[in-house]
Amino acid sequence: MASNSRSPISRRTWIAATSGAVAAGLIKTKADAVKLVAQEAPTPPDDPTKVPGRFTSEVGVRAPEERPRRLTRSQTLSSSSRSPLQELQGTITPADLHFERHHAGIPDIRAGRHELLVHGMVERPMVFSMADLKRYPSVARTYFLECSGNGGGAYNRERMPVEITPQALDGLLSTSEWVGVPVKTILNEVGADPAATWILAEGADAAVMSRSVPMEKIMDDALLAYGQNGEAIRPEQGYPLRLLLPGWEGNASVKWLRRIEVTDRPTMTRDETSRYTDPLKGGLSRQFSFFMDAKSTITFPAYPYTLPDTGWWEIQGLAWTGRGRITRVDISTDGGESWTEAELQEPILPKSTVRFRHLWNWDGSESLLISRAVDETGYVQPTVQQLWEARGERTAYHNNQQRVWKVGADGAVTFGLGDLV
Amino acid sequence: MASNSRSPISRRTWIAATSGAVAAGLIKTKADAVKLVAQEAPTPPDDPTKVPGRFTSEVGVRAPEERPRRLTRSQTLSSSSRSPLQELQGTITPADLHFERHHAGIPDIRAGRHELLVHGMVERPMVFSMADLKRYPSVARTYFLECSGNGGGAYNRERMPVEITPQALDGLLSTSEWVGVPVKTILNEVGADPAATWILAEGADAAVMSRSVPMEKIMDDALLAYGQNGEAIRPEQGYPLRLLLPGWEGNASVKWLRRIEVTDRPTMTRDETSRYTDPLKGGLSRQFSFFMDAKSTITFPAYPYTLPDTGWWEIQGLAWTGRGRITRVDISTDGGESWTEAELQEPILPKSTVRFRHLWNWDGSESLLISRAVDETGYVQPTVQQLWEARGERTAYHNNQQRVWKVGADGAVTFGLGDLV
Repeated sequence: MASNSRSPISRRTWIAATSGAVAAGLIKTKADAVKLVAQEAPTPPDDPTKVPGRFTSEVGVRAPEERPRRLTRSQTLSSSSRSPLQELQGTITPADLHFERHHAGIPDIRAGRHELLVHGMVERPMVFSMADLKRYPSVARTYFLECSGNGGGAYNRERMPVEITPQALDGLLSTSEWVGVPVKTILNEVGADPAATWILAEGADAAVMSRSVPMEKIMDDALLAYGQNGEAIRPEQGYPLRLLLPGWEGNASVKWLRRIEVTDRPTMTRDETSRYTDPLKGGLSRQFSFFMDAKSTITFPAYPYTLPDTGWWEIQGLAWTGRGRITRVDISTDGGESWTEAELQEPILPKSTVRFRHLWNWDGSESLLISRAVDETGYVQPTVQQLWEARGERTAYHNNQQRVWKVGADGAVTFGLGDLV
Repeated sequence: MASNSRSPISRRTWIAATSGAVAAGLIKTKADAVKLVAQEAPTPPDDPTKVPGRFTSEVGVRAPEERPRRLTRSQTLSSSSRSPLQELQGTITPADLHFERHHAGIPDIRAGRHELLVHGMVERPMVFSMADLKRYPSVARTYFLECSGNGGGAYNRERMPVEITPQALDGLLSTSEWVGVPVKTILNEVGADPAATWILAEGADAAVMSRSVPMEKIMDDALLAYGQNGEAIRPEQGYPLRLLLPGWEGNASVKWLRRIEVTDRPTMTRDETSRYTDPLKGGLSRQFSFFMDAKSTITFPAYPYTLPDTGWWEIQGLAWTGRGRITRVDISTDGGESWTEAELQEPILPKSTVRFRHLWNWDGSESLLISRAVDETGYVQPTVQQLWEARGERTAYHNNQQRVWKVGADGAVTFGLGDLV
């Protein structure tokens, strides 16, 4: 390619590729133009091999066609945003698309000033800076996080939605590689009293989110997490430090963690008495229902997708359990009459989402797609009838019913139980 | 908190938190103010529990203190950028920090118009759209990618750097969860001739990057990858489609893949004759040296870090091999006199980076830190003397020598072999 300047780009190519940007006033010098060649062209080139590409960059950007977004409805301090499950692949959730659930917004905290106080039933109350915590041996593990309210919108018989996406339905679920120090290490450091049976975890947000956690969980696999998917935890996920309780309801994994008090009883905070309890039948409530039980959800095909053709389609989705490993996911395409085992993506990690895949030959008739997860305890993801039987119809938490998607004869996919209830 | 409007934020808090933003002209309405509360405060609040946080968002942002950047030196069409290894944790590289190596910049390609032609020694030459490819059964696997030139800057005896960061030294290395269709599936679909022994892979960038790949690798674990870390591959990594050859030199994993030609010999492209061959002793060259052999690099402590104190420090780094799994990483803190086995982060996946950790009690004396990876074939990461002996001192490719970091008595860490050469 001929060139009479330092740049290897010919004058003709430059003009052709950048005229739109020049017209838009974006280009003042040729150096600007070179930077913009492939990036700012109003339409992409017909033949990309004929146009020099844009340069390397300090931080990458998504393709213009690929701009997944969290779903965030009401802008209030207590609100949530949901991961775009139907647009995601594999198991990792990109950090900037991890679901959010805040009770008083995202606080502005600088790591250099953040401290963790550990006190209560301990020999040596201590304050840890982030630099202090990072000197302890760390671990990295891939875990899902799920809000206990996830899927609650689809539980109620009277308000069962039809036009709902996997994101709107089950998007309070995300998976990351988390890095941090086992809480156990720090409790050993402060000399926790062997008689202690609980801790209180307190966040530094304006809600001062506070939850009690049994010592057994803390000494098992609880983390003081400061890393997520290779980098520092994002502010939306608790920067610079969060508690991480693998497999337990997300709310108990207190974000922006600033205080751990070692106790011999649950503290009975507002967040575990007035909230995060499950209404049961007969006016009863279930408290401290920490575990997220086995669940699965189909992310393709799902509303608003329409299958354009009959023939082979790969049904895909995610399965997870707070009790350990997923051992099997069954798929039905006939509303639960018959089931076939789906393929699970390796490695199957405990307390992580597992992607399942099942090749399905659609014959063009109306079909009801259901997935059913089984975990290593033998627990089987229940039908909605089983869940209603066990818990009544008034709770919106821990809603792990089998999800049903209807594929119409026109290929359009909608959510719901149809004639199954 | 008292409030006389829809917002739960008191007037006093609002004024206190937003006065800087008001002065800067950023706030016109109270709704603007609420959005800006925690985000735009000129300084973070002393007590974040007293200030309402910012709202949920469609796409997250990094904390102001945490802005890792790729290292990108010269802005030319043929250039590279490096992942900030010393700032990363765990094993996953965030997609926007994945290293780049382009020969003619990053092309602007829209997935809706991109096609893959598969032809040559096949029964049925076919053109696949991205929608076509996505209907085939997919797999997701975590693999490293490494440029064969990675670390070359530290190979030369005369120009051995001292003040070099892990990013500048070994940052042409990144790890992602890749999603795609096995190339084998597509070759079965087109009916590849059993007599075929190679393929040609061609990119749609302005360099028309072209490499020959033995059929044995293609039928083993090669992928047509369209997903990366849960989302669509980034443009810098080959959007919308790249070849992925697990464990092999990055250049052969052709990005922006538009053509596969099935052949019975290597095509001898420019990119595998004039480039990507390894000069050896005696004027010889090594061609098609695809495998990336076992290697490890310490990312902490490393230049420009200075250990502020003696005592316990966690040495951390990454190990990887294109031959399968890493089985062991040994650490020496005395220049190779004695070695101790490091802890490896589970799960240890084949052809993926593995994080190693080793707790070290620094006594304040000058120390030479070395890591040494061993893989499942029994191969041991060589010393630089062994590498020079085998390959001479003129190649800058496939440089997997043991890296040495010197910790001075003042705690300052520098790179180099010191008196070892």
